[in-house]
Amino acid sequence: MPQALVLEETKRLSLRDIDLPSDVGPKDVRIAINTVGVCGSDVHYYTHGKIGHFVVKDPMVLGHEASGVITEIGSEVRHLAVGDRVCMEPGIPNMSSKATKLGVYNVDPDVRFWATPPIHGCLTPSVIHPAAFTYRIPDNVSFAEGAMVEPFAIGMQAATRAKIRPGDIALVTGAGPIGIMVALAALAGGCAKVFIADLVDEKLGVAAQYGNIHPINVTRDNAAAAVAEATGGWGADVVFECAGAAKSIQGALEAVAPAGCVVWVGMPVDPVPFDLVLAQSKEIRMETVFRYANMYDRAIELLASGKVDLKPLISETFAFDDSVAAFDRAVEARPTDVKIQIKMPDA
Amino acid sequence: MPQALVLEETKRLSLRDIDLPSDVGPKDVRIAINTVGVCGSDVHYYTHGKIGHFVVKDPMVLGHEASGVITEIGSEVRHLAVGDRVCMEPGIPNMSSKATKLGVYNVDPDVRFWATPPIHGCLTPSVIHPAAFTYRIPDNVSFAEGAMVEPFAIGMQAATRAKIRPGDIALVTGAGPIGIMVALAALAGGCAKVFIADLVDEKLGVAAQYGNIHPINVTRDNAAAAVAEATGGWGADVVFECAGAAKSIQGALEAVAPAGCVVWVGMPVDPVPFDLVLAQSKEIRMETVFRYANMYDRAIELLASGKVDLKPLISETFAFDDSVAAFDRAVEARPTDVKIQIKMPDA
Amino acid sequence: MPQALVLEETKRLSLRDIDLPSDVGPKDVRIAINTVGVCGSDVHYYTHGKIGHFVVKDPMVLGHEASGVITEIGSEVRHLAVGDRVCMEPGIPNMSSKATKLGVYNVDPDVRFWATPPIHGCLTPSVIHPAAFTYRIPDNVSFAEGAMVEPFAIGMQAATRAKIRPGDIALVTGAGPIGIMVALAALAGGCAKVFIADLVDEKLGVAAQYGNIHPINVTRDNAAAAVAEATGGWGADVVFECAGAAKSIQGALEAVAPAGCVVWVGMPVDPVPFDLVLAQSKEIRMETVFRYANMYDRAIELLASGKVDLKPLISETFAFDDSVAAFDRAVEARPTDVKIQIKMPDA
Amino acid sequence: MPQALVLEETKRLSLRDIDLPSDVGPKDVRIAINTVGVCGSDVHYYTHGKIGHFVVKDPMVLGHEASGVITEIGSEVRHLAVGDRVCMEPGIPNMSSKATKLGVYNVDPDVRFWATPPIHGCLTPSVIHPAAFTYRIPDNVSFAEGAMVEPFAIGMQAATRAKIRPGDIALVTGAGPIGIMVALAALAGGCAKVFIADLVDEKLGVAAQYGNIHPINVTRDNAAAAVAEATGGWGADVVFECAGAAKSIQGALEAVAPAGCVVWVGMPVDPVPFDLVLAQSKEIRMETVFRYANMYDRAIELLASGKVDLKPLISETFAFDDSVAAFDRAVEARPTDVKIQIKMPDA
Repeated sequence: MPQALVLEETKRLSLRDIDLPSDVGPKDVRIAINTVGVCGSDVHYYTHGKIGHFVVKDPMVLGHEASGVITEIGSEVRHLAVGDRVCMEPGIPNMSSKATKLGVYNVDPDVRFWATPPIHGCLTPSVIHPAAFTYRIPDNVSFAEGAMVEPFAIGMQAATRAKIRPGDIALVTGAGPIGIMVALAALAGGCAKVFIADLVDEKLGVAAQYGNIHPINVTRDNAAAAVAEATGGWGADVVFECAGAAKSIQGALEAVAPAGCVVWVGMPVDPVPFDLVLAQSKEIRMETVFRYANMYDRAIELLASGKVDLKPLISETFAFDDSVAAFDRAVEARPTDVKIQIKMPDA
Repeated sequence: MPQALVLEETKRLSLRDIDLPSDVGPKDVRIAINTVGVCGSDVHYYTHGKIGHFVVKDPMVLGHEASGVITEIGSEVRHLAVGDRVCMEPGIPNMSSKATKLGVYNVDPDVRFWATPPIHGCLTPSVIHPAAFTYRIPDNVSFAEGAMVEPFAIGMQAATRAKIRPGDIALVTGAGPIGIMVALAALAGGCAKVFIADLVDEKLGVAAQYGNIHPINVTRDNAAAAVAEATGGWGADVVFECAGAAKSIQGALEAVAPAGCVVWVGMPVDPVPFDLVLAQSKEIRMETVFRYANMYDRAIELLASGKVDLKPLISETFAFDDSVAAFDRAVEARPTDVKIQIKMPDA
Repeated sequence: MPQALVLEETKRLSLRDIDLPSDVGPKDVRIAINTVGVCGSDVHYYTHGKIGHFVVKDPMVLGHEASGVITEIGSEVRHLAVGDRVCMEPGIPNMSSKATKLGVYNVDPDVRFWATPPIHGCLTPSVIHPAAFTYRIPDNVSFAEGAMVEPFAIGMQAATRAKIRPGDIALVTGAGPIGIMVALAALAGGCAKVFIADLVDEKLGVAAQYGNIHPINVTRDNAAAAVAEATGGWGADVVFECAGAAKSIQGALEAVAPAGCVVWVGMPVDPVPFDLVLAQSKEIRMETVFRYANMYDRAIELLASGKVDLKPLISETFAFDDSVAAFDRAVEARPTDVKIQIKMPDA
Repeated sequence: MPQALVLEETKRLSLRDIDLPSDVGPKDVRIAINTVGVCGSDVHYYTHGKIGHFVVKDPMVLGHEASGVITEIGSEVRHLAVGDRVCMEPGIPNMSSKATKLGVYNVDPDVRFWATPPIHGCLTPSVIHPAAFTYRIPDNVSFAEGAMVEPFAIGMQAATRAKIRPGDIALVTGAGPIGIMVALAALAGGCAKVFIADLVDEKLGVAAQYGNIHPINVTRDNAAAAVAEATGGWGADVVFECAGAAKSIQGALEAVAPAGCVVWVGMPVDPVPFDLVLAQSKEIRMETVFRYANMYDRAIELLASGKVDLKPLISETFAFDDSVAAFDRAVEARPTDVKIQIKMPDA
């Protein structure tokens, strides 16, 4: 088995051996990788070679959504054991930084994140990782679901920052993979129901297979109007903007209720025109999301309890040997595809 | 049809005519009552004639958990119409008080609350009520469920004040009617799962018919130990203490996680010994609950969406003519009884 | 004495008699006006005849920042008495609305606000007002300070929504009247120190007469850089954007710390380009402000305790007979002018 | 110079050499101690040999409130330099624990805290400490004030957890050293004024030397009544209970306003009778405090800005050679003594 799926340069992947760390430090564990999900950022590095100011200059192993089995533990590790089934948080902060001490290690400027240049990812049979960011998954959560914890954690972060109150009505704008993760986290996290808006019926169909997620096709209906009608004119208690488009951003401000909350999840490529006065006239709160912190434990609890079922979102699974094909499928971006996964041979 | 179920004095009820208000003010509505639930406080006034410093001195109509149909609206009422199916919030604050302006009208000292002496309750064919505290229920919520919104609102208040984060693990101590309402609100409100502790298997059985509610019989198992085991030693993110007993109060402090939250719902008759240092050593937050404010809308949303199903908790329904029998059944306090309801003849 | 300062049409004011309400309802009080401050919005109606979609179509009395003495109370008023020195909250919501019940009556769509067309203002010797929005001022707070409570309440609202933690470092962008009010509220409200940024040295000089307010002239220094240097590179815990200009809005996002908060107070005339990704990369919270709710009590406490001294901000006081001159002075917008006030003759 | 002030056993101190760590790890710094404050816990170990389940079994160096100068830095330390004047947070958590990742490292069960058995304290000429818990103090903050940051951080933690809103009225019960620290933090942290209640006029006199701290001698006046009178019957927005006595605990519940907050700072030796129903009837929030987390930075900012002046609270300073005398003076517990400090000879 070759060592890794390597992004050699823009648009060129290869499965080959590459020099990776091999020492398990006292607080680390070694994990035999089982399943890795393909994320939009992996695909974007493949097709464009960069995201913002993160540029792939040297060959880099891809992948950051992973589950596996512990094969070795460091001398100081207490809460994990060899044989534990686990999933891993891909970002490792400076544990002594101000941000980390504050509990917001996700915004520590020194975070090292899998498959964000120049840090290698996890599409490789075995990784070494800090035990503090390795989480046990119970028997009733599959490896495939374990590898979904990473994208779901973004939805969890959004739902948590929204400070949902039980029985809130939410609107999610954008029914892509992240929008759906957010909708599921919002619903499990206390919303009575979630409206989800998109331009594409197939995407809405994937979302609407879940109970209490109500699709709005914005080519036919106005999202703010639909939400207003469903709420006696009040508006959505929370809007999660997950599309990152100017129109959708304006729509979020229109749909939110007085004193409500908009969570900005989608990332527009450039600065967008923003109707601050509309936001002010309702005195809304706005939250932003950057990855996640302290979400894995609780995401796993929701999967284990059955309150959230991510299995219908796994669109297709490829063998590690077919990793390049997996990426090419992901590049297609079929509207009904939510998650493409890659499975290790021995796993 | 007689006008009302009147508590004449301790242990004596009668169905008879009584002088009640008849003018619909400009901001009021008149409601034909359909269903009224019997609450523990109604029963307590019946059996003891008082609760704390609230003493029944004159004959008083009982009942405060009601649904019905609007038959007349005041001249300034806009958001309701004749024929609307509704349920009513039984406490009416001074709308100009400091507490009300702050949004916490439940703690306004001037609240007038149905069936809290000397205010008459709603076990009568028709009531006049402020439109601001009258809430439309959708077609898929029955009158019986509408009359359950009041007790459920207490659970909602507890779940809201807990500031549940998505995926929290909760413990509810006490599986009586309020404990079950709290457990359901906590689960709908974002918890991954809820443990519920009681001494009586029958009560636990009622609670455990719901998914993700896990019973603990404290005559056999230690609640704190069970929660610790289920959480890798961390403890419950939130404990809702609903029993009001000294042992259960201590158990709540033992079961809660570091930096967790205990919500004190149960009301001990006398001051209890309290282990403040234990609370401090985990630096927990503690919330208290007094009835509810701004919960009806969101409680109704959770019933309408199907996220919360209260129908299994309606143990038996009596005709209005059999109201005294309904109360006598409630006095029995059968362990599997959660809610006894009374239905109006025409309804 | 004529009855009122009337805005007859754009750019034309007159002091004349006008028909105003004269009945004191059961929950109202009558107040002999003592002092009225001239606000930027009064001036804008004078010079432009409208603000956004609020257009002056009929003659309207100006003024909404007022103090005075109670001369009559309604039959149900308990907490106020004839002779009480008071100041008044100029916006009156629908007391039965959803927003009001939630405690956010400022965002009730039905608010009637003094000197916002078509509602008459308070530049008149006597007004009738709901007792619930009339606040007693203690002896050591002058009428002039009492008339400053209204603009200070905006600063209080901003400081409150920021959820300042003790010892926070803040940046205020814009040293106009509102910027200064916000800076003072932030400092009294828990900040260790406040940086304030503006283009004009005279304005900064007014702000910097207060201890722990540090001026930054952005024609010479970069605000974000100055704050970064003062905080070891971390940034401002809270930024209050009070200028409403595109450059200042971008500067706010640059200056705020990871996991910090930006409060959007300034109102840009048109939608502005907004760097959402910059906000997301620090995972900041953003709050907006629309007037204020439940701030008068606490604003008065801060004036009475001496923690906040607004007297240096009263630039000049005109007699009621010279009201037009007062407005013309306000139109000048001298950089060192913060507040122009008008005093009633008998007061 | 001997190496340390050692608690040999209950009631026996000696200044002598003792074996202490000498290696500066890559993330550590070495600090020449300048000033050390004597804390009530140091005194309690001296007089009783234990606090709760922490028992002094072997000779232990005392002291945990310290300032000094860095004399050596580890290879990975970036934000500190040799010669920096600093103060140190005495508790060191497990940096990989769940509590630490959540930002509440103070409740990490594995915290190692200076002078809490079996961990040696800092009454020694030189200590090695993690750079992450070592904080630079600016030139205008003296070493004596730097050594006061530790006790003040407890006040800061209490004020922060209270979530003070600008202009709140607070009551502090207990005018001992911690009560005064809390009062000062509450005032700097946003309260308009603070009432402080105690039995002893001398203690109240120390507190009342500060502006806006109003003493209540509870042998003569009822604290709840005094606060009610000052607030139009509403009560204190926040009560900080710092006495830990049953009577004071009841008084806190009586004095707090509806929907207010009680922060439990004082630690009663045994469980106390607690009037939960009184707390519930006002629906208050209750917070607890265990040491502090993330408070040093902001405490230092408040000292540097002059918003908080702790210098009047330093009652007497002893030379290191007179450490035993310093402790014996602290044992006296003179009512006007707030803080006894010990200064190193070379410092």
